[in-house]
Amino acid sequence: MSFIDLRSDTVTQPTEKMRTAMSEAAVGDDVYEEDPTILELEEKSARIFNKEKGLFFPTGTMANQAAILAHTNPGEEIIIEKDMHIYLYEVGGLAFLSGVQSRQLPGNLGQLDPQEVEAAIRPSNIHFPRTSLICLENTHNVHGGTVISKRDIDKIAEVAHQYKLPLHLDGARIFNAATYLQTTVAELTSSCDTLMFCLSKGLSAPAGSMLVGDENFINRARKCRKLLGGGMRQAGILAAAGIVALEEMTNRLQEDHENALLLAKNLAEIPWIEIDVDRVETNIIRFNLDTSHFSAVEFENKLREANIKVNVSGDGGVRMVTHKDVTRDQVEHVVSVLKSL
Amino acid sequence: MSFIDLRSDTVTQPTEKMRTAMSEAAVGDDVYEEDPTILELEEKSARIFNKEKGLFFPTGTMANQAAILAHTNPGEEIIIEKDMHIYLYEVGGLAFLSGVQSRQLPGNLGQLDPQEVEAAIRPSNIHFPRTSLICLENTHNVHGGTVISKRDIDKIAEVAHQYKLPLHLDGARIFNAATYLQTTVAELTSSCDTLMFCLSKGLSAPAGSMLVGDENFINRARKCRKLLGGGMRQAGILAAAGIVALEEMTNRLQEDHENALLLAKNLAEIPWIEIDVDRVETNIIRFNLDTSHFSAVEFENKLREANIKVNVSGDGGVRMVTHKDVTRDQVEHVVSVLKSL
Amino acid sequence: MSFIDLRSDTVTQPTEKMRTAMSEAAVGDDVYEEDPTILELEEKSARIFNKEKGLFFPTGTMANQAAILAHTNPGEEIIIEKDMHIYLYEVGGLAFLSGVQSRQLPGNLGQLDPQEVEAAIRPSNIHFPRTSLICLENTHNVHGGTVISKRDIDKIAEVAHQYKLPLHLDGARIFNAATYLQTTVAELTSSCDTLMFCLSKGLSAPAGSMLVGDENFINRARKCRKLLGGGMRQAGILAAAGIVALEEMTNRLQEDHENALLLAKNLAEIPWIEIDVDRVETNIIRFNLDTSHFSAVEFENKLREANIKVNVSGDGGVRMVTHKDVTRDQVEHVVSVLKSL
Amino acid sequence: MSFIDLRSDTVTQPTEKMRTAMSEAAVGDDVYEEDPTILELEEKSARIFNKEKGLFFPTGTMANQAAILAHTNPGEEIIIEKDMHIYLYEVGGLAFLSGVQSRQLPGNLGQLDPQEVEAAIRPSNIHFPRTSLICLENTHNVHGGTVISKRDIDKIAEVAHQYKLPLHLDGARIFNAATYLQTTVAELTSSCDTLMFCLSKGLSAPAGSMLVGDENFINRARKCRKLLGGGMRQAGILAAAGIVALEEMTNRLQEDHENALLLAKNLAEIPWIEIDVDRVETNIIRFNLDTSHFSAVEFENKLREANIKVNVSGDGGVRMVTHKDVTRDQVEHVVSVLKSL
Repeated sequence: MSFIDLRSDTVTQPTEKMRTAMSEAAVGDDVYEEDPTILELEEKSARIFNKEKGLFFPTGTMANQAAILAHTNPGEEIIIEKDMHIYLYEVGGLAFLSGVQSRQLPGNLGQLDPQEVEAAIRPSNIHFPRTSLICLENTHNVHGGTVISKRDIDKIAEVAHQYKLPLHLDGARIFNAATYLQTTVAELTSSCDTLMFCLSKGLSAPAGSMLVGDENFINRARKCRKLLGGGMRQAGILAAAGIVALEEMTNRLQEDHENALLLAKNLAEIPWIEIDVDRVETNIIRFNLDTSHFSAVEFENKLREANIKVNVSGDGGVRMVTHKDVTRDQVEHVVSVLKSL
Repeated sequence: MSFIDLRSDTVTQPTEKMRTAMSEAAVGDDVYEEDPTILELEEKSARIFNKEKGLFFPTGTMANQAAILAHTNPGEEIIIEKDMHIYLYEVGGLAFLSGVQSRQLPGNLGQLDPQEVEAAIRPSNIHFPRTSLICLENTHNVHGGTVISKRDIDKIAEVAHQYKLPLHLDGARIFNAATYLQTTVAELTSSCDTLMFCLSKGLSAPAGSMLVGDENFINRARKCRKLLGGGMRQAGILAAAGIVALEEMTNRLQEDHENALLLAKNLAEIPWIEIDVDRVETNIIRFNLDTSHFSAVEFENKLREANIKVNVSGDGGVRMVTHKDVTRDQVEHVVSVLKSL
Repeated sequence: MSFIDLRSDTVTQPTEKMRTAMSEAAVGDDVYEEDPTILELEEKSARIFNKEKGLFFPTGTMANQAAILAHTNPGEEIIIEKDMHIYLYEVGGLAFLSGVQSRQLPGNLGQLDPQEVEAAIRPSNIHFPRTSLICLENTHNVHGGTVISKRDIDKIAEVAHQYKLPLHLDGARIFNAATYLQTTVAELTSSCDTLMFCLSKGLSAPAGSMLVGDENFINRARKCRKLLGGGMRQAGILAAAGIVALEEMTNRLQEDHENALLLAKNLAEIPWIEIDVDRVETNIIRFNLDTSHFSAVEFENKLREANIKVNVSGDGGVRMVTHKDVTRDQVEHVVSVLKSL
Repeated sequence: MSFIDLRSDTVTQPTEKMRTAMSEAAVGDDVYEEDPTILELEEKSARIFNKEKGLFFPTGTMANQAAILAHTNPGEEIIIEKDMHIYLYEVGGLAFLSGVQSRQLPGNLGQLDPQEVEAAIRPSNIHFPRTSLICLENTHNVHGGTVISKRDIDKIAEVAHQYKLPLHLDGARIFNAATYLQTTVAELTSSCDTLMFCLSKGLSAPAGSMLVGDENFINRARKCRKLLGGGMRQAGILAAAGIVALEEMTNRLQEDHENALLLAKNLAEIPWIEIDVDRVETNIIRFNLDTSHFSAVEFENKLREANIKVNVSGDGGVRMVTHKDVTRDQVEHVVSVLKSL
């Protein structure tokens, strides 16, 4: 039985071209840094983002956590927006792996206030941990795929660099942000010292995320990757799909955004759904149910019966994500099912 | 040269009676649990707070961090008010020592909203750390020695216990809270599973804090204390002063509160000082300088010249704390100095 | 330029059948536990080892470290043979990730003495960490691919279970051990509570290792895998190769062992090489150079000029590993090159 | 009931002079570095050991663990003798607090072989943790209070410094070593970068240990002390006893050594006791029972009935420690009791 799966863009299937590339990939032992396909992907990633070096990771979570490990020492503090993925959805890795506290600032759809960031940087005091990193997420998952502009990133980078702190970007969906802003990812992230982006999700590779930054940082991150158990051998198999993702999949994200907007506009017409259509900038739609009408679980089950999968939380929040494997026709079908409930 | 030291009640000198008690204390090796004075202090503490057991610690920071160690496992999450001492002033120990993340909720002068607490408890999900502890601080240092009522503590305890989570109280100045509320510390903290209180600070012992809770918890905390390097040998010397603190010093805190209020009311008359007198419930006064009039550093230096020490932060915030070693006359002197600036 | 690569069996290339399987694999999102090829590989692994459940990992290091995380709590102690891979070659992960100390016992070619193990288990004492795990490695890499017999594993398991401690096996090359012992892996490891084995190395999959054990353990390990960043999405691509590895590659290891023995016997005839041929039980050969004849680096370079890669350490120790991509002819060529040096 | 307590020199009672000094000590808030008695003790300690700075700690365990924290980063490796106190008796703190692995080398009564130390230093390799510290213990507790000579310390220091690694000494009983060697502690430890020594134990202060080293190290250790919860306020009370300990108690240790030797020589005459009298260099006596004669527990109980306390382990090992509170007469009494068993 085939579902229309709107739970996440992580469910995307690899394309035929990816499958062919994987089956034909030249591979070597990447722990010895001898896998030619990995080397090609890492160079290509660095070039696209205009950073010195790139490094392949099996997952975005590992890439983010390795970045934090490489930027910080245990007992330090990092400044984040309070709903960031690295804090909410990475199994407590900040404290567990890096031993760092996060200072959680409220943001405006993911964007931090530069003055609040500056005020949160710790002065020297025997009671205080040292602040050692500032992080942003773009697009911002929890706030609904919202985009932070280059100007807003740069403002935070300016504060960070004034205090000699690095700025790390969780850019799991940075190509969605660049698509929305009609700019390049290199231009958009030029003031970030390091960033992670995913080859899976919207770009549809089966697995893999990249970290890019300067050479010293990437060398430290490589050691952290080994420590975390991310030193795969013939990883070029996955990298082959990643190269296809970068070459062929970044230009099609506009389609997902249009599908998301179509869905959002129709959801707004349903009386028992509360949605802010203006927030739907990319491929994520978040809305709340009038739970006097439907409980979250009832809603999920009704859709499941119609072969549609969505993500609900206990309090009536729903997330839908559009991606390569959801067509325009399927979006229209979802709309008609929702309107008929 | 003698100062009027308003920086903190941590500066209090031991009383003559404490000095005599320390010099005469019967002591033994507390790692073998054979120090009679320690045993007496631990029993007395448990009795006063109506908990099963007590445990002596060299500092309040160690007592708090050992409590969190004993309540949690690395990789878990704890729910705190965003300005708590355990998070802001304990050198990042939450992540470094316990490996736990803190979920920082905004509070109302230190009190958490029970519904927000409930919403912050994590459901089961492969991406999520488990929530394993809720913490409160009473009186609340950063908010100005503000007091949380028994009713408000109980509301948070109710949420905690509904989810089978323990509630830990940082009661460094819990005797100040009980004094303000005209109740006993046992009554005030009856719904807390565990709590820490200080023998130093307002109670004037030279060093030492107590953890109280049930026997299983105290056994685990004892092992954590050893791990952290808090297993002192003839600790009864310090415990002797702690016993005096509990017997003779808890009833005099009202005096400190009256001095603080006198100070606050006079500060309110000074045009370049911004203070909310209503918040001054116990022995801590926090106010802001009109920094167009005085910079924080200038203000601190002016007072230092007049042999008065206060705590300032870079942004013009000032903290004054009254305590045993600041007399009514000295408070009046401070007022006259301030008014003359 | 093509090398005869004897550095490690990690360099093995995927077979044609693996490449085809990967390109055709049915995949889903494994974080949602919906990847059919992963599920098939996990079930097959559990069945082959006669354990309740299996779990796929991107690397053996992550599988080992997740096993230790799942078996222990920070501050505990584990008992290991002093030259185990988990201690020597996993970047300090025991302490960094799990926060556990290792008690390092000398072994006999990797096998521990049951009485020494028992003596090393900590009694209850306020000064002591709790012993919580015993580990073995079979075949044992550092000692030269040596094999521990079922009887010897069982003796350690008996001690472990008498003290209610789990026994974890690093079975990265357990199929080599079973081949040598002419038994099944299930029979050989029946007394181990949990074990890791590699699909890469001799079995030639491009990446991936499996953890097997009971359901509770695997559930905990799955959470640890997510924390470490090992929760890949369409991981079935790699699992497809792993299934071929299990179905087609375990029976060919005898060939590698014969090649290793041929190599070892010839090495023994070279006067400036010191080797114990009796130790060469599987596919790993370790020997020492007479460094008055060749320094380690000279030796490595000489072979490199002849298109042969080996692993040397600074003190003149050499490791050669035979595997699928080194043919009998190539082994004979290596012998002739060595004899001509 | 009064016991002759030979379990440890940690049970020593403070002297009358210490009690007087504590009751009269000038104290201040040591977190603000304003306690005059602490400052005096820290300066005196640095001077006696000819190091730049000293720092007071509530316990030796905390001083050792803070030293390791200050010398290392998580994920690194330290080289130790396999029976050191920091590894065996400090609750797993090496891994839990510092996140470091220990490489455990066998020693000769506590002394390491310089060549084995050098061979254990890790070269650069993606699989390896970095070696960052070497540690010694003098006198060595587990081996029976054995002394490491200056020449032997210097040999290890030479290896350490050749690789730019610091050497830390656990000198809990370093004054016993210096007494045995008839030298000064400064001379004996001149090649150690940092060291810890105890004011309690043989020197009889109720609590407290000192860390000495260069200024940068002590600054880092001070922050670690705060993190671990060792930042006591009016700590000068304890420091006052520590000053007396340094001024009056270091010269009397010879007496404890003579008592230990007397005891050892008599023990050697008892047929069911196995003891190496030559090892009894300072105040610790370790021997084994012929457990066919007495079990450990029987032996302990027999002595307990005679009001004598000793430390036994389950396998029949016994430790006796002489100290200030055990007189010559009492030693002779113990001998007669033992001979009568």
